[in-house]
Amino acid sequence: MVMPANVLIQLKLENKPGTLAKILTAIGEYGGNVGSIDLVSASPGYMVRDIMVGMHESQQLMPLLEKLNSFPEAKVLHVADRVFLAHRGGKIQVTPKRQILNREDLSLVYTPGVARVSQAIAKNPEYAYDLTMKGNSVAIVTDGSAVLGLGNLGARAALPVMEGKAVLFKQFGNVDAIPVCLDVHEPGDIIAAVIAIAPQFGGINLEDIAAPKCFDIEERLTGLLDIPVFHDDQHGTAIVVLAGLLNALKIVNKKISDVEIVLSGAGAAGVAIAKILLDAGARNIVVCDRQGAISLARNLSVPSKRWLAEHTNPQNKNGSLKEVIKGADVLIGVSGPGLLHREDILGMAPRPVVFALANPVPEVEPEEVYDVAGVLATGRSDYPNQINNVLAFPGVFRGALDCHARAINGEMALAAAHALAGIVRPGELSADNIIPAVFNRDVTPKVARAVKEAAIKSGLSRRINHFKESIK
Amino acid sequence: MVMPANVLIQLKLENKPGTLAKILTAIGEYGGNVGSIDLVSASPGYMVRDIMVGMHESQQLMPLLEKLNSFPEAKVLHVADRVFLAHRGGKIQVTPKRQILNREDLSLVYTPGVARVSQAIAKNPEYAYDLTMKGNSVAIVTDGSAVLGLGNLGARAALPVMEGKAVLFKQFGNVDAIPVCLDVHEPGDIIAAVIAIAPQFGGINLEDIAAPKCFDIEERLTGLLDIPVFHDDQHGTAIVVLAGLLNALKIVNKKISDVEIVLSGAGAAGVAIAKILLDAGARNIVVCDRQGAISLARNLSVPSKRWLAEHTNPQNKNGSLKEVIKGADVLIGVSGPGLLHREDILGMAPRPVVFALANPVPEVEPEEVYDVAGVLATGRSDYPNQINNVLAFPGVFRGALDCHARAINGEMALAAAHALAGIVRPGELSADNIIPAVFNRDVTPKVARAVKEAAIKSGLSRRINHFKESIK
Repeated sequence: MVMPANVLIQLKLENKPGTLAKILTAIGEYGGNVGSIDLVSASPGYMVRDIMVGMHESQQLMPLLEKLNSFPEAKVLHVADRVFLAHRGGKIQVTPKRQILNREDLSLVYTPGVARVSQAIAKNPEYAYDLTMKGNSVAIVTDGSAVLGLGNLGARAALPVMEGKAVLFKQFGNVDAIPVCLDVHEPGDIIAAVIAIAPQFGGINLEDIAAPKCFDIEERLTGLLDIPVFHDDQHGTAIVVLAGLLNALKIVNKKISDVEIVLSGAGAAGVAIAKILLDAGARNIVVCDRQGAISLARNLSVPSKRWLAEHTNPQNKNGSLKEVIKGADVLIGVSGPGLLHREDILGMAPRPVVFALANPVPEVEPEEVYDVAGVLATGRSDYPNQINNVLAFPGVFRGALDCHARAINGEMALAAAHALAGIVRPGELSADNIIPAVFNRDVTPKVARAVKEAAIKSGLSRRINHFKESIK
Repeated sequence: MVMPANVLIQLKLENKPGTLAKILTAIGEYGGNVGSIDLVSASPGYMVRDIMVGMHESQQLMPLLEKLNSFPEAKVLHVADRVFLAHRGGKIQVTPKRQILNREDLSLVYTPGVARVSQAIAKNPEYAYDLTMKGNSVAIVTDGSAVLGLGNLGARAALPVMEGKAVLFKQFGNVDAIPVCLDVHEPGDIIAAVIAIAPQFGGINLEDIAAPKCFDIEERLTGLLDIPVFHDDQHGTAIVVLAGLLNALKIVNKKISDVEIVLSGAGAAGVAIAKILLDAGARNIVVCDRQGAISLARNLSVPSKRWLAEHTNPQNKNGSLKEVIKGADVLIGVSGPGLLHREDILGMAPRPVVFALANPVPEVEPEEVYDVAGVLATGRSDYPNQINNVLAFPGVFRGALDCHARAINGEMALAAAHALAGIVRPGELSADNIIPAVFNRDVTPKVARAVKEAAIKSGLSRRINHFKESIK
């Protein structure tokens, strides 16, 4: 377990002399170094204080808290560790690109000067790309209905995740991303809200919206808006999975058009992965949900599953995941923890490619199958070959924004996956190195360029022939 | 006229050798210094280039442009001056508060660490104030229906104004303000969109929404949300007007409870000014719209005007602005240009207070009445006594956010006005100095403190007894 270096202890203390000194003495006795002491609130009867405590030995923390609670004049209200401390005050801010230092600045960026800019945009709406934040801005839209793997936590609870994503957008792609956590959950209401806020954005990143409504929402928004709408849980994941698979197949020397792929999970990620694999030339994919293989033999009410039955599973296989995986070349799991074991992987074709992406606990324990799998990838950072969306979305949106794209289509996603796979040079490629690391600086520019070029080829760029270079 | 120091000339040039050289030579001949040259787009037939040109003598610009257009291989597409240049790429950005430099940072501010923060907020929604951007964030919401004095320009064209306002929020109040330019115009749709996006914000600043729908929208949102909803065109203006009036009346030695006030304009600002003046103790206010005095004798269909008829004009005066202004002590104009002249001000009571706030052209030309008015104020920066909303909104929201206020009520607005007036010390007070300057650093902290204290007194603070001080 990671040891907390600093904890913030919030205490409710009786408002009488000597109480604080008693607390501080106890902290010292348990090996804690007192940092800042903040008064949160006060009343005649008691005070609430935040005390920052540095602990050298984290196992002393629980005894200290018990000691503090043992004082009749004290009550521990809350203990925040490093994760909570890193979130205090939020993770993003809105900052001016240019400071307003005097009246002249004010007249340029605000009234009266701004009036002419507004009038110019009213006359020619495309100017918004150049003269406002629109050209570099993406909305990260969620309704909080599928926050990470935690389910429907709602808009407020989704905000820390969206802020984290905004940080990644800025740092990896220099994209200004704004969380939009919607307190509505019906697809029609979500769509109406996104349409209402869309004019100021150059793109919409849908995030953590539950399947199957996410499919409908994305499809309808794509039809209604003239900017890219991209559900990252679908397409971001699909791009990185395809990139990893392209390289993994080089390792095991198989062709995507020949391999039998079993996909465990028919949620947002599963459906998008199936689609991008088909676009990339895969011909033999069997998708499993909790009931087993999705085939025409089943009575399917969810449209996305009907689509899968019609477009995958060419041999119309039926049966459980454990059954259909027999003899398969590739397993891609975007489902749940511990569904498979060593014997299941042993039953696959020789040198199987295993992407066990359920997080934090994969479909199969990596330790069980390291010596069996030809290539093994997970969603985790503590094993090699991490399939992480941050490899895709910053570059995808950077490329789309750079050409004022009208949409992100299948060609752009395919181009992103191929660019991402290509970053691992032939000499570097190995079973433990099929995908670039998250902090590899080549990733965003290369993905962005590929996406932009594909947008231009697809006719989705708003610029005649976009490229921009300063010659002086 | 202000001379542009730099202009950006966008040219469409035939794609053949020598064209660019010809252009650059011409620019030099007309006294221009070539700065950066950017290629915007290219096709086999032509190129679009942005050329930055420094001009020492701005009167040379038009002849240069004519010269450039005279070349058969060139066409000037666009010329951007300093105002446009200050807007290129937008005016705000979204930046991380902490950088993500390595995997450990990633695990703290994004997955897996962030999951615990989301769960904590799901359990206790109030934590959002501490652990997300909510505690410091304001949405600047507009539908673009009344952009500055320019009318209904729409959401996109409103964005530069909202971005400018976000810059002011950050610089003057350290508030993270996010433009929300809505592409819907029916009050019900605006309300639905604001409700949907509200969870992540600590306050809503309504902006540039046309009267009379702005009244209904603000009132209904205030009832539906548990965060402040503040229409700045109404209450921001009203606070600064009251602050100025309180000081102006000291100069002319009159009491607010005794003076006869004529208010020209019954739009968003006019209605709010009437209300705050009543709250501040004014008893004799006559509000005029284009038809003249608003009285019970008129057949009024707009609810806000009916309200005015019922709560102002105690003597039930009728007639035009020019008629009712006779003998009045105070004129506050938030209407249109040039409605009044010297003789109208001469007909007011001795030492009249004249706030001619129509922008950019006031209700009466300052030059006509300088020697007649006891105190004169305008909305412009090129005369003394500028009534500027930036004196109010950053401090008002700073104070509201600092106590996690549930709303901004009349007491908080009054407190803001009194605090603002109080910044001009008795020794500094004069007919030419009734209101602090926009860049006075005392303004935001003093307004914020007054607003916060009034919130606590009103029971609108979410903190038991909010104050926070570090003792180590």
